[in-house]
Amino acid sequence: MRSTVVAMTALDERPATDGRATTTVTVAAYLGTRLQQLGVGHLFGVPGDFNLDLLDGLAVGGPTWVGSPNELGAGYAADAYARSRGLGVVVTTYGVGELSAINALAGAYAEDVPLVQVVGAPRRAAVEAGALVHHTLADGDFGHFARAAAEVTVAAETLTADRAGEQIDRVLLAAVTARKPGYLAVPQDLALAEVDAAPLAQRLVARSDSSALVSFENGLAEQLHGAQRPVLLVGQLVPRFGLDRELADLATRHGVAVVTQLSARGVLEPGHPSLAGSYAGSMLDPGARAVVEEADVVVHVGTVLTSELTGFGSHRRPGAATPFLAADRAGFGDQATGRVLLPDALAALDRALAGRVGPRFTAPAQEAPAVPAAGGPLTQAQLWHTLGGALPAGTALLADTGTAYWGALGMPLPADTVFGGQPIWSSIGYALPAVLGQGLADRDRRPVLVIGDGAAQMTVQELSTIAAAGLTPVVLLLDNAGYTIERALQSPRAAYNDVATWDWGLLVAGFTGGRAGYAEATDDTSLAGALAAAFADTGRMHVVRAVLDADDTPPLIDTLAALATAAKG
Amino acid sequence: MRSTVVAMTALDERPATDGRATTTVTVAAYLGTRLQQLGVGHLFGVPGDFNLDLLDGLAVGGPTWVGSPNELGAGYAADAYARSRGLGVVVTTYGVGELSAINALAGAYAEDVPLVQVVGAPRRAAVEAGALVHHTLADGDFGHFARAAAEVTVAAETLTADRAGEQIDRVLLAAVTARKPGYLAVPQDLALAEVDAAPLAQRLVARSDSSALVSFENGLAEQLHGAQRPVLLVGQLVPRFGLDRELADLATRHGVAVVTQLSARGVLEPGHPSLAGSYAGSMLDPGARAVVEEADVVVHVGTVLTSELTGFGSHRRPGAATPFLAADRAGFGDQATGRVLLPDALAALDRALAGRVGPRFTAPAQEAPAVPAAGGPLTQAQLWHTLGGALPAGTALLADTGTAYWGALGMPLPADTVFGGQPIWSSIGYALPAVLGQGLADRDRRPVLVIGDGAAQMTVQELSTIAAAGLTPVVLLLDNAGYTIERALQSPRAAYNDVATWDWGLLVAGFTGGRAGYAEATDDTSLAGALAAAFADTGRMHVVRAVLDADDTPPLIDTLAALATAAKG
Repeated sequence: MRSTVVAMTALDERPATDGRATTTVTVAAYLGTRLQQLGVGHLFGVPGDFNLDLLDGLAVGGPTWVGSPNELGAGYAADAYARSRGLGVVVTTYGVGELSAINALAGAYAEDVPLVQVVGAPRRAAVEAGALVHHTLADGDFGHFARAAAEVTVAAETLTADRAGEQIDRVLLAAVTARKPGYLAVPQDLALAEVDAAPLAQRLVARSDSSALVSFENGLAEQLHGAQRPVLLVGQLVPRFGLDRELADLATRHGVAVVTQLSARGVLEPGHPSLAGSYAGSMLDPGARAVVEEADVVVHVGTVLTSELTGFGSHRRPGAATPFLAADRAGFGDQATGRVLLPDALAALDRALAGRVGPRFTAPAQEAPAVPAAGGPLTQAQLWHTLGGALPAGTALLADTGTAYWGALGMPLPADTVFGGQPIWSSIGYALPAVLGQGLADRDRRPVLVIGDGAAQMTVQELSTIAAAGLTPVVLLLDNAGYTIERALQSPRAAYNDVATWDWGLLVAGFTGGRAGYAEATDDTSLAGALAAAFADTGRMHVVRAVLDADDTPPLIDTLAALATAAKG
Repeated sequence: MRSTVVAMTALDERPATDGRATTTVTVAAYLGTRLQQLGVGHLFGVPGDFNLDLLDGLAVGGPTWVGSPNELGAGYAADAYARSRGLGVVVTTYGVGELSAINALAGAYAEDVPLVQVVGAPRRAAVEAGALVHHTLADGDFGHFARAAAEVTVAAETLTADRAGEQIDRVLLAAVTARKPGYLAVPQDLALAEVDAAPLAQRLVARSDSSALVSFENGLAEQLHGAQRPVLLVGQLVPRFGLDRELADLATRHGVAVVTQLSARGVLEPGHPSLAGSYAGSMLDPGARAVVEEADVVVHVGTVLTSELTGFGSHRRPGAATPFLAADRAGFGDQATGRVLLPDALAALDRALAGRVGPRFTAPAQEAPAVPAAGGPLTQAQLWHTLGGALPAGTALLADTGTAYWGALGMPLPADTVFGGQPIWSSIGYALPAVLGQGLADRDRRPVLVIGDGAAQMTVQELSTIAAAGLTPVVLLLDNAGYTIERALQSPRAAYNDVATWDWGLLVAGFTGGRAGYAEATDDTSLAGALAAAFADTGRMHVVRAVLDADDTPPLIDTLAALATAAKG
């Protein structure tokens, strides 16, 4: 459960300008102030000659700079930071830098993450002249990369002299309101130009359309009034808005059943009386499935209905009257009543549930998971059982795509666990830099990373930034010599699923300056010992390399592969 | 000098189809055959579930698969391969994979490299249904990434059932003709679909428009007939088309002066009697500048006139009658006579020069470079002098962006040196994976990499692929604890220019399985010893870490920084 609450709705908007002489600030300072107002204390990124003025300007009282070895790592880190803080920023240079991070932006779009890319761009005079400068395609067209960014963001602006403040405000507000990525290009010669500081006196706020909110609440109240078996199907937008606690309290207050999509795992505490399990059609928890199938009203609270999240179509499909609460609209079926922000919609749901006259729901006790046979070479089944037994409360569990993610899904979580991954975008290598962003965003919560070797090879250098930042995660590396999830899907013996062999002990020492503990585990006993030592020693990073068979998978992968194959046909 | 010659022009085109029953091959096999016809023996990339059918299809008799830790590294490797072989291919999966490599595509555009990205895309049924599948933005729009790719490629196609072969041919031919990147998305369910094999009987060829070629030749002959001091200004398209030898022979035959842009360094052998040096306005060689300033005709042979390549405007600008030879057009001033391919245009230039009646040019002997004072902590001046003395003939010298590139530019080259880098796109980290592509493209030529630590941190994991492929480069790592080229440009003490400290000895051992030699050098004596040992031991990779002061730069950087600053004002 995340405790961050972002105040999104407020009654005030900016006052009208009154024409008096105003104080000014640089564009960089304007941006820095806005970011701090929105909870951004760190900037991730890589410098480049087009963004040095911007970085110099931001360095004066702005958020703390966290440099990464490359832009994709910085982008992933900023994504994880945004999930925790409500906004994250990656700063890159033009062309070479921004394109290296565009995968992170697209991922943020798919996963509903307010990640803003700030790009140091060429001088306006060069653009106007169509000059052939470095970091361009040498064709005089400076719009290529902003157009590419527009494909994967909800708002994209290249700042102009007369509208810079307004453009910054528009992109930031759009990103936090929609929980989607944004893009701001700052021409090199505008970074330190002066703009009116007056708008900074008012926080950026978005608000719901009041009549749309009333319509939504009335419709909800009508449906829920006599509902005997309502269920809230909760998706990723709830943790993205930091509304975990509001949702938990609402569920407690009204005794309403809650099932979570796998993208919202950990939103309710394990053992919460309303929590009926994880739901993805026939793919996951049969208990959760029964609750949804038997419900008389299913309320979609911040869901996204992708193939994997719906068990490849085995999900109960929403009907024409099904209530939904999205980031910035709410309604029934495929009709929104209008602009309704999720925090307001959730408050409306709370009020509507107060009028319900049906019985309270209490979740049945969860069955304890099966205990795998001990001994022998380490298996995936043993690994997840052992990790589940070792994981302390209060961690941020980051699971990379592949067997790591599907294994972690099948493992019961301890109390107060934040669970992160990319079930929609599924870009391997994401979760390692995510440790950096998550760790800096919430220093009281120790990050725990589970990641396959193929994924870790993508972004391994970010281990150095994590160590340099003084973070102390526990990293469980699932080394099965390649892309085991692909082996499960097709051509298990294909050479393309093998990766080069690395000596992880040397690499961890080389990247972290010897600051990290390192252990290897080849059976369940050595794994249990290594994890116990790592969790006990909270003062430094620990990496535990678990050696697994190339074809061994957690049980959920078999279900996934079978459903995926069936869906193809 | 590169010896690869790519036959681009031919008289035959494909025969008209005659309606008889045809044999078929899979789309993957069709693509694989076309690639092999165009000289592609290796595919670089990363597998993903959307491209597994494609990879399985290509594995049957197609080019050899070379898997990389991540897509950007694979893209850079394929770029270097393309420079040597005339075509390179990076294979990725949809979304997560292709976007991770898009920086490499854009770089190929700027640098005139025929790099084709082949993307395994979702099934057509999913696209038609607007399904919300993984690796998408979960918005039902499958066109985002192809549109982004279209911004940085000269031809982009998503294959269809009835036109797949034709689409493959169009993209490949466009890429090799224009020496620009291309993009081919192969829907998962089309990879193994059957298409007509008949077109494969004819090689893909492009040809010049004969009247445009004649016009160009006549115009050239007229200008050159009485020219007393003509000079050929040679740019990157000459090595990209593998026309180095043709150009050298032409220069020898006609006694015409040649100056090279820094993007075409090494095209003529050092000591070639026509070679008047490197030209970039006032930035480089004063002797070359005088030759250009005093010329009566300057012929632009495959040039690109970017800010850096023209010494920030200090270049002699082409006039309305200045002849130019580009990839697929040629003409005078800004008027092309039509479609004229560079090999044909060069042949026309050869014939036109044959009619010239002016004197032969002989380059003056080059002055020996100054010898820096020996002893003390290692300096950049010592490093380039020492490397210049140690570098054997017959290498491929790859210089990453930053002090490595500008230092290498100031160093005399030994005979038969291929020199590679990114003077236009300037994406740091490019040259390390480029070792993989260059090394596999031309196994007889030992790669030598010079790269700064900040750049090497970007793409370091590719060391493992280089080792796994059995390549034996010499890597000279310039460790100055950060981005020294940026320190030279602005804010030398800014923390954002520092990078995390790595233990390179451990990392090299960890990535290469102990297969690489490793040495450190802190003065000119230890550097000379380490380089001598590395060059003598040709059987394995060697990494030499040279420890340099954070503010020390090669002399050209000072010139560059001064010109860049003046150009800003």
